[in-house]
Formats: sequence, structure tokens, C-alpha cells
Amino acid sequence: MASLIVVGSIALDTITTPSHQEKQGLGGSATYFSAAAGLLSEPQVIAVLGEDFRLEELDFLRSRGVNLSQVKVGKGKTFQWQGSYGDDLGEATTLRTDLNVFAEFKPQLSESQKNCDFLFLGNILPQLQWDVLEQAENARFVAADTMNLWINNENAMLRKVLSRINMIVINEAEAKLLSNCSDIRDAARAIRQMGPEIIVIKRGAFGSFMLHEERMFLAPAYLGSQVIDPTGAGDTFAGGLMGTLARFGSVTNDNLRRGIITGTALASFTIEEYSLGGLKRVTLESLRERYALLQEMMRFPDFD
Amino acid sequence: MASLIVVGSIALDTITTPSHQEKQGLGGSATYFSAAAGLLSEPQVIAVLGEDFRLEELDFLRSRGVNLSQVKVGKGKTFQWQGSYGDDLGEATTLRTDLNVFAEFKPQLSESQKNCDFLFLGNILPQLQWDVLEQAENARFVAADTMNLWINNENAMLRKVLSRINMIVINEAEAKLLSNCSDIRDAARAIRQMGPEIIVIKRGAFGSFMLHEERMFLAPAYLGSQVIDPTGAGDTFAGGLMGTLARFGSVTNDNLRRGIITGTALASFTIEEYSLGGLKRVTLESLRERYALLQEMMRFPDFD
Repeated sequence: MASLIVVGSIALDTITTPSHQEKQGLGGSATYFSAAAGLLSEPQVIAVLGEDFRLEELDFLRSRGVNLSQVKVGKGKTFQWQGSYGDDLGEATTLRTDLNVFAEFKPQLSESQKNCDFLFLGNILPQLQWDVLEQAENARFVAADTMNLWINNENAMLRKVLSRINMIVINEAEAKLLSNCSDIRDAARAIRQMGPEIIVIKRGAFGSFMLHEERMFLAPAYLGSQVIDPTGAGDTFAGGLMGTLARFGSVTNDNLRRGIITGTALASFTIEEYSLGGLKRVTLESLRERYALLQEMMRFPDFD
Repeated sequence: MASLIVVGSIALDTITTPSHQEKQGLGGSATYFSAAAGLLSEPQVIAVLGEDFRLEELDFLRSRGVNLSQVKVGKGKTFQWQGSYGDDLGEATTLRTDLNVFAEFKPQLSESQKNCDFLFLGNILPQLQWDVLEQAENARFVAADTMNLWINNENAMLRKVLSRINMIVINEAEAKLLSNCSDIRDAARAIRQMGPEIIVIKRGAFGSFMLHEERMFLAPAYLGSQVIDPTGAGDTFAGGLMGTLARFGSVTNDNLRRGIITGTALASFTIEEYSLGGLKRVTLESLRERYALLQEMMRFPDFD
């Protein structure tokens, strides 16, 4: 199996939805990503925790085969995020961000990690993404996520990152902001000019879209979930996609599509519960079942 | 080939979009439906025109094999509709409706039409749909469309119609209104309790959804169109679906899926131009191409 590394956050999230408040639940991009990818591969996590973090919270990741040896404990508290969702459970409004130990986060790759096969740069400061890229010059395939804050405030450094990666996994609104294009296909083509040869756009309830070479792939969202909390859906999706690429070891158009549907299926578990509840529950067997359900829901015969 | 009849409107539409006003263009549910279905089958139209109507406007339907022998010319003017779209080109706002000859429309089926294979009741007053159903007792398969106006104001008669049809083709907002359910799957199951065994829900840019027995089908919208005017997309979709069923002559789950993708492909031509422009341009060859594009955009391999 090919090696897979994720650099991102481990956080304590306080989430308010119309029906409930979930206080200081386990969250963070590296957590959701590796919980998803761990079903498919053996991801290694580069992240930082605070002294207040109860390490047994990560036991289920370890039991899933996630390598946490490069997770450091920093001086101070764990990164905390507070967000709130409206009635449509769409975009979150950030109420508060306490970077805490994350403010001093300096991702360090081990010697073997510098030569990894697959590397995912979670949505962190572009300067940190760049620092990792400099260390991992020999990585075979690099993907990254980003957000409107960095597109607006750290554009030059983000552009440097984009010029060096193979794939970007990004929200539709962010893709349009980054490219200054209102059409999703134009946006994808414009972002391709910035560097990455594969553009994956997450569209929430619309599903997702990929441009790879001149081929477009259109995936719906799974329709069978009752949405409880969408936090982590995007990182879960990316974990399913990158985990699939690492599992198969090659980046073909077919493996990318397989990865996107796997990510879609896994994200559907994430949104059904708070925090990592949905991802803790999912097994390779239930993932396979949901993948097959998506196949059955999207299958149709030839014209004639 | 199985016979197919559509009962609906032929109209002159004045459409205002953010970029343009198109005055008194050919429109109406029976027109869009039969222009689409005529590529696949030999639909017969039951409708009424006004004395002001330039009959050569229908020549392209005739050349496509649409049977117009039951289209009557009434005393007065043709049905006119004025609608306007906002920047998102989503739902139309009705500015004005002049029923004109349509106010006195009494659909009459010929003896052979009463025994047709496939019958589509366009979005007209439920009482008129019922009158047609009474005449066409021996029709093999009946589908209907409806709208919020009839759901709110003619609910009892609409329920009578629903109890006698095989398939409903309806917008998502209308499905939710009719069923009083906020989840699309719950809405479909609730409407099934009212009569039709097949529920097709049109979701605009989200694509469409079908419930047939316990199987769900999820189709995206085609992503390659620049939307100029969405008027007629729903009737085009229904024409592609029913035309496919008539072409194959049997209502299997596979043929329904094939029909939904054919309707999706045809609707993508409709929205690319004003009035019937897009549908006039499409050929069986370009339809096949777009169907194949949708297949390529939605295809993905097994999990393993």
C-alpha cells in the first residue's frame, strides 16, 4: 500500500445547530481526514495537540491503523473552534477561533515522510502548507484544501502552493472566489492554469465536480442521510478520496472517480452525527454498502 | 411503436430575463412536450389555438412527426403568458396570464386515442385532466404534471386525478407542498399513497429524483449548458421521458431511468435558447451525443 500523510488540525469544536449544542467535541481537518482515510489506507498524521487534550480520544484512530507518531503535544491548550448553523444546515458561521497551540504549529516531517507517496495539505495557513511542500519535495502526489480567508488575505503564498500541487479539493464558493469565475467549469479551468492538474469542487447538497484532463465527473450527494451536523464533511470527503488513491497506488481517472464516490459515501456518515460519531460507526462493510447504494441510485442504461 | 398522446397548452410566451425580453414566442406545455417526444416517438397533441396563431409556427413539429390533427382553432386569441426571471434564472414570476381560447378548452379524444398506450396530462386545470381520464379509461399508462395553484385551490379534484394515474412528474417545491413533507424521499412516498406508483421529482439545477417500487434514482442536471431561458425545461423533460417509454413500449425501471436521462439531455437544449429554439436545433444525433456525455460524466467503477 502506498504511504499517505495528512497535515492539518486536531481541534475541539463547539457546534450549535437549531436543535442542539455540542460542546468541545473532537474535530479538526486531520482528524476527520484520517478517520476516513484509515478505512482504506494507513494515513500518518502531522498535527499538534494542547496539554488539555485527553489522548484516549484518539484511540479509535489508532485502532483504525492511523499512525499518530508525528502528532506533537505543544505548550498550552488545544485549538478550539466554535461554529453555528442555521435551519438549512448549510454554511457554518464561525463564532470564535482560539488557535492556542496551533499558533506555534511548525509541521515537521520525518525523513521517511519526506519521500511519501501521497500528501494532503489540510486547510491551514498557506505559509505552513508551503513549509511542508519544501520538506516533501519528493512526494509523488500532493493535494491541498484552502478557504476564503487565505484566498483573500494570503493570496500570493497560496498561489505559490498551488503552483506546486497536483490536486486541489475546494468548496464551490471558494473555487469561484479564487478564479473570479461564476461558472463552475470556467472556475475549474482557471484554477488549473494556476498549477494543479486535477480540480475537485465540493458542492454540498449538490454533490461534487471534478475536472481531470478534459474529462468532467459529476457526483450527486448521497440522498439517504438525515443531516445532524455537516462539520467535517469536506475533510471526510478528502480523506475518502486520498485514501482511495493510496489504496490503489495510482492516480487514474477511474481511481479518482472511485475516490470521489468513496468520499461522498463517507461524508454521508459524518453528517449523520455530531463530531466523529458517524465515522466511528462506519466499517469497511457499511462503506461498501453505501457505495453500492450510490451506484444503484446513479446507474442507467445506454440510450438504445 | 406505442402510441403517445399529450394534452396541454400551446401558448405565446413573453419572457423577460435579466439580459433580454422575448415577445410572444411559441411556448406551452404541449408544444415543448411534443417537440421533445417527437424525436423518439410519434406523439399526438390535444390542444387549442386562437385565430391569431400563425399555423406555420407548428411546421417543425409536423416535420418531426408530431400528429396535430386534434389541435383545434377556437374563437378568440391564443393563450398568452408573461413571465420574468431573476438573476439566478431560477423560478419564473408570472406577470400576466390571458387564458383566451384556453378558458373554453374542452379536450376531445378521437375513438382511437381513447385506447392509446401512453397519455400525458400536462399542467392544466385538474377538472380538464379528469375529463380526459374519463374518456381514456383504456389508456395503458397515464402520467400527469401539476402545479402549486391546483394543489392549493383544486386539491380535491387533483386528488381524484392522482388516484387514477400511474406516474406524476412534478417540481420539488410542489411535491413538498402536495405531501406536506420536507424530505424529498418522504414526499415521494407520501404522494405514492395518493395513487401514482412512479414519482418523478424535477429539481432544477439539482437534476431529478425518481421513486419506483423501493428503488430510488438520482440524476444530475447536465452541466454544460449556458442558461438563457429555463421556460419549458420541465415539459421538455416530461416529453423526453414519455417519448422514451413510448419508443420502448414498456415501463421498466431501466426504461424509466433511460427516459429521465433523455429528458435531462433534451431539457439542456431547451434552456440554451428562447422559446423552442434549442429544441428545433436538436437532432437524434445530437441528443445521443449529449446522452453519452451525461453517461461519461456520471460513470464510475466498482469500489474494488
